[in-house]
Amino acid sequence: MSLAQEMFAIAPAMGKANLSASQLKLLSGKARWIYRVGEAGFPTVPTIVLTRAAWEALQNERTRKDIRLRTHWVACLFKLVGKDGTPPPLVVRTSAATHNGGLMPAKLGIGAPAHAEDSVDPNRPLAKSIKQAFDSYGFGQGWTARPHEDRGKQIVLIQAQVEGKIEQFLTRNGTTGALGPAPLDGAPLPKLPESAVALVALVDAKAGRHMCCAVAIRHGELQFLSARPFQASPAADLEAAVDRVNRKVWSPQNAVSRVDPTRLAQLLHPRLKSTQGAIPIAKGLGVSPGAASGMIVFNPEDAARLRARGKHCILVVNETGPSDIDGMKAATGILTARGGMSSHAGVVARITGKPCVAGVRTLSVDASEMVCWIGEREFRSGDLLTIDGSDGAVYVGTLPLAQPHIGGAIRTLLDWSDASRTIAVRTNAESIESATTALSFGAEGIGLARSEHMFFSPERMVALRRMILSENEDDRSQAVNGLVDYQTGDYSALFSTMQGRPVTVRLFDPPLHEFLPRTDDDIEETAASLGLAVRALRLRLDRIAEVNPMLGHRGVRLAITYPEILSMQMQAIMAGVRAASETQDEPVAVEVMVPFVSTASEVAFVRERLNTIAANSGLLRTERVKLSFGTMIELPRACLRAGDIAQMVDFFSFGTNDLTQTTFGISRDDAPTFLAAYQRKGIYERDPFVTIDEKGVGELIAIAIARGRAANPRLKIGICGEHAGDPASLQFFSGLGVDYVSCSPYRVPVARLTLAQTSA
Amino acid sequence: MSLAQEMFAIAPAMGKANLSASQLKLLSGKARWIYRVGEAGFPTVPTIVLTRAAWEALQNERTRKDIRLRTHWVACLFKLVGKDGTPPPLVVRTSAATHNGGLMPAKLGIGAPAHAEDSVDPNRPLAKSIKQAFDSYGFGQGWTARPHEDRGKQIVLIQAQVEGKIEQFLTRNGTTGALGPAPLDGAPLPKLPESAVALVALVDAKAGRHMCCAVAIRHGELQFLSARPFQASPAADLEAAVDRVNRKVWSPQNAVSRVDPTRLAQLLHPRLKSTQGAIPIAKGLGVSPGAASGMIVFNPEDAARLRARGKHCILVVNETGPSDIDGMKAATGILTARGGMSSHAGVVARITGKPCVAGVRTLSVDASEMVCWIGEREFRSGDLLTIDGSDGAVYVGTLPLAQPHIGGAIRTLLDWSDASRTIAVRTNAESIESATTALSFGAEGIGLARSEHMFFSPERMVALRRMILSENEDDRSQAVNGLVDYQTGDYSALFSTMQGRPVTVRLFDPPLHEFLPRTDDDIEETAASLGLAVRALRLRLDRIAEVNPMLGHRGVRLAITYPEILSMQMQAIMAGVRAASETQDEPVAVEVMVPFVSTASEVAFVRERLNTIAANSGLLRTERVKLSFGTMIELPRACLRAGDIAQMVDFFSFGTNDLTQTTFGISRDDAPTFLAAYQRKGIYERDPFVTIDEKGVGELIAIAIARGRAANPRLKIGICGEHAGDPASLQFFSGLGVDYVSCSPYRVPVARLTLAQTSA
Repeated sequence: MSLAQEMFAIAPAMGKANLSASQLKLLSGKARWIYRVGEAGFPTVPTIVLTRAAWEALQNERTRKDIRLRTHWVACLFKLVGKDGTPPPLVVRTSAATHNGGLMPAKLGIGAPAHAEDSVDPNRPLAKSIKQAFDSYGFGQGWTARPHEDRGKQIVLIQAQVEGKIEQFLTRNGTTGALGPAPLDGAPLPKLPESAVALVALVDAKAGRHMCCAVAIRHGELQFLSARPFQASPAADLEAAVDRVNRKVWSPQNAVSRVDPTRLAQLLHPRLKSTQGAIPIAKGLGVSPGAASGMIVFNPEDAARLRARGKHCILVVNETGPSDIDGMKAATGILTARGGMSSHAGVVARITGKPCVAGVRTLSVDASEMVCWIGEREFRSGDLLTIDGSDGAVYVGTLPLAQPHIGGAIRTLLDWSDASRTIAVRTNAESIESATTALSFGAEGIGLARSEHMFFSPERMVALRRMILSENEDDRSQAVNGLVDYQTGDYSALFSTMQGRPVTVRLFDPPLHEFLPRTDDDIEETAASLGLAVRALRLRLDRIAEVNPMLGHRGVRLAITYPEILSMQMQAIMAGVRAASETQDEPVAVEVMVPFVSTASEVAFVRERLNTIAANSGLLRTERVKLSFGTMIELPRACLRAGDIAQMVDFFSFGTNDLTQTTFGISRDDAPTFLAAYQRKGIYERDPFVTIDEKGVGELIAIAIARGRAANPRLKIGICGEHAGDPASLQFFSGLGVDYVSCSPYRVPVARLTLAQTSA
Repeated sequence: MSLAQEMFAIAPAMGKANLSASQLKLLSGKARWIYRVGEAGFPTVPTIVLTRAAWEALQNERTRKDIRLRTHWVACLFKLVGKDGTPPPLVVRTSAATHNGGLMPAKLGIGAPAHAEDSVDPNRPLAKSIKQAFDSYGFGQGWTARPHEDRGKQIVLIQAQVEGKIEQFLTRNGTTGALGPAPLDGAPLPKLPESAVALVALVDAKAGRHMCCAVAIRHGELQFLSARPFQASPAADLEAAVDRVNRKVWSPQNAVSRVDPTRLAQLLHPRLKSTQGAIPIAKGLGVSPGAASGMIVFNPEDAARLRARGKHCILVVNETGPSDIDGMKAATGILTARGGMSSHAGVVARITGKPCVAGVRTLSVDASEMVCWIGEREFRSGDLLTIDGSDGAVYVGTLPLAQPHIGGAIRTLLDWSDASRTIAVRTNAESIESATTALSFGAEGIGLARSEHMFFSPERMVALRRMILSENEDDRSQAVNGLVDYQTGDYSALFSTMQGRPVTVRLFDPPLHEFLPRTDDDIEETAASLGLAVRALRLRLDRIAEVNPMLGHRGVRLAITYPEILSMQMQAIMAGVRAASETQDEPVAVEVMVPFVSTASEVAFVRERLNTIAANSGLLRTERVKLSFGTMIELPRACLRAGDIAQMVDFFSFGTNDLTQTTFGISRDDAPTFLAAYQRKGIYERDPFVTIDEKGVGELIAIAIARGRAANPRLKIGICGEHAGDPASLQFFSGLGVDYVSCSPYRVPVARLTLAQTSA
């Protein structure tokens, strides 16, 4: 392209611009909008464009006494002259691709140059302003953010100065997404000419996002000046996307591909209306999204009392355990000093949809004194706090909250998304409430029912503790048998709720001691209920205590050391199938999954016992059940030995939380002490517990899938870790060819949308 | 081979046997010895051999009225007739390859058959005995242990019955290994003819191991009957091997290849003389080999008191921590209720060479009441116990112990072994005592000096605690500076001890809380020494507590979050180099190693800081130091990203303990609760913490070596986990092409011998 072609009208006062492809590429920032609106035939401020390279050539030409470029330049300037032939006053402004604080503000009222020489003389007003405009680009972040762009391609706009009143308005309402003109910043909308409606429709269709338009109004006529992107709320974006489809601007596939799944997630929980002016007093880990405000409580009783009075409260504890369940359910939000994403607090909070900030290192709690400190500041029961479980911020007092706005648009978009999605989306749920929520969000099955969570209630806890603390097989069998009925009822209800959709039951997998009494009161009570001396109970508890419970006596290891627990669970599952199948036409699709395996021999041991119980149930010969057997793949060794393991199972389900913990050697509960420093010092680009580590954990998953499918081509592959609700991770999983993912109920819409985008 | 060839004399009464190669292959059990001794020209009982196939053919021939085989058979029997032409009474006996309780005892005094028909008629004495002999083989374990062997090839011996007194003796002394004849079972040796000396030399040379010979003595003449292997003590085996080289029976290489490294290990610690009649009252994990007897003590004070009086004691605790170090040093042995191989107790016990049994689940200790229970049995301070740290057995009372017998033979053998060994053997040591012991055992350097172990003393612990508990960088820097002098002295002494041999210093790697006070007294004392309120200290301790310390804030994570600790260590190392280099001619070869890395970015962070300090020391420009930088590879992700990491380091050292823990997802400390069941139920063939898991952990190591060497061809590779002292694991590592291994001092001889065997 010759330099003469780098100075041209994008909106001539008369006629069309007729740009070449190379010229189109030069249009950045507002230049693009001026050109596009003008080309569409809408009255637009006359504008010409000049690149830095062309400008410098014009200057060089002066020293050579050459005038060819200058002649072209003057011809360009003439394109700003309207029908009446009078050269208008000029405006010079920058047109950067991204906003940059150092840019020169527009220079108005520049007289049109009297001579051709004036038009390039840097001592004369026009050329002086152009020079200042180019100089203001500098080497700042605005341009260096696009390093591929040649500095010589930077552009400056020269416009005819408009007359009349300048107004700004949005193409769509910033909160509802309805097509505008809509007011900016809550200011009332001025009276606008009719043609404004056509303008916003035009700009909205071209931009496909909220834009802020600037126009000049004179004698009731509207002239377009420029437009810039406007960041609307996630809800408004979503409504706008659906509206564009309804107006046939977009196809449904366009809408699906253009909504950001991360922003969709923000719609599904209450959130802070604004944090302007509010300074967090502490930062922890946002482990369950959403915001909550309320009074500080330190125990379940207070939480229940406040809830009964219709008051919100934040449960503040050092860390939570099973005995805090009732308090967590009663509280509006949870704040803990210790623990991370996979801490008890985090898991329960996400299941119950409670906002939770965990691992606030500056928090210390003295529950017995009903007092806590955040840093040096002291808080007592009843003081007000606000927490933001999305970013881990903690605020003093109450901040205004926005409740989730789930209109018809979200459902419409997700329905469209299902058309292009090929990977199934299930949910992690074991309670009827969670399962029902997930179904309403479009879950296609349960990919992870954590059977041990079914014991998180006081009466069942007693039965479970009796089982764990039995010191011989007879006692244990007796205790175990007492649990079959509870579990049967749970499974039956869950299967019925899911109406034939697949339900993956993970066999018992807690670190045992998580179910054991901890406080003195609790120990005394448990001792009494077991008929044991307190001292004897303490000795047993001491024996069971583990140094690293995450790597301890859990998962399949429990099934192998305590096969009676395994048998109890399988009997309860089959009894649950029988009960559910009597009330529905569809067969019950149950997938039994063994956790924490590292060798094929463990799988063989469990499979043999499960098969025997399933066969004895008599149900396999009927049409009432579709039973399959699989393993969690959540240890590096299981990934490497996937070929052996795959020959014995129908499916793999990757537990990416544990796999990340073991691959990195990081306890997620303990990571907050150093993860912050790691991110600050640039050691990790991203938190591997939020977005899957493709190069390490991801390679292990890829190895496991390749070896597993090679050994068993019919192997079904799922993902059931927290990462299954993270858009970036879902993209990676989609590339690995998984069959399904399973995430927490509130993440189901995010997964549906993301996987539709990756499949398209 | 025709069936006629499956009946033949192996020691004819006259002349030589002249066997074909196929016939030689048929000789199992005592038949081999009869043949070999007879062929060597030594008077030997006349013997013929018959296979089961030949025997069955002889029987079949009877029904066909054929006599060809029978004619051959009778000819064989005639080979038992001596010069005088009189057929001797016969003996029929089995000759199985391995001993089997169900075999028929020898039948003596069978009259020679009068007719050819009698020799095959199962109603006549000879054939009847032969049939009984074959029948007695059955399908028992003796033969099924060699499933490749054709049942038809089972053999029976028919011998001339000898006259005279039958005597048995060993080829070599069962305890000292001196060439015999030597008494069997401590019984006095009978008077033997001169020729017995030639016989034992002959059999010893042929067998290359201790044998028990049976002979008949008549008129002062000795006739060889048979020989069988005899299991001598490890010391006797070793002395015998060296003696065979001295007698030119073996080459030194033969001796090196034929001594079992596992048995060598048993020579290097005190051990139980015999466990006959003693029944263990409990079984734990043998985490530090050797046996110890003594009085039970529950605290360091009592241990020190007894030691001062020259009495042995066993320290019995629930688990040990840094405050128990003095007690552990004073005690003769250690017994714990909790913990495994890598527990504090295990690590310290192996370093100090103390026998230790850990993780005895039936043990509970009430230290305050000075009482413990093993199962239902109560023990008080002063009661006597014996522990066997090799197999984890615990006995009541004292059992006789054998002190390690390290004669010249072990040194001779190891010197020979060095000739064929290509992989270097270093040791894991940080104290001067351990380093000196290891040098005396032939260590060629230190492959793992755990810098945090240098703080295991009360005064240093105070300084260290101050550093850990500092709440801001200034306090911490001050505390850290106080530690430089301690460390400088330690390093200087260690470098001087090693006299220019390489010393690999692992940067600080403990879970921080392992160094923190735990008991109330300890907390009060620490609070006082830090000038803190007890309550404030408790709050800090609560904050530092970790759920899974093994996966917590340790290794390189400490270096990144507390760079001042990193700087302190490197300054101390360089100061130690300076001090040591002033007293020796050789340059100090120090290799600084960063533990627990999972990403190359961590390595880059540490390397930059270390390089700066090293450069500032001015030592790099001199000939006084050879400095290199490397990483532990002990996490699955480090193995996968070995290519990235290798570009930044001079060496990798695999920490197979942690790598096994993370690959399997098993906490070694907590594993005893289920590992026993796993081995009992056949889930694991071998304990992966004892012998490297080749298929899982081994694949990760192989991947890391391949990727590491591809990215950095000069990369040096070492192994420094416990597995580096295990013969089976060493064989595997040898196949991977590692450059060196590093094991505990007492394992150095085992590694030297094993690696000589694998290199040969």
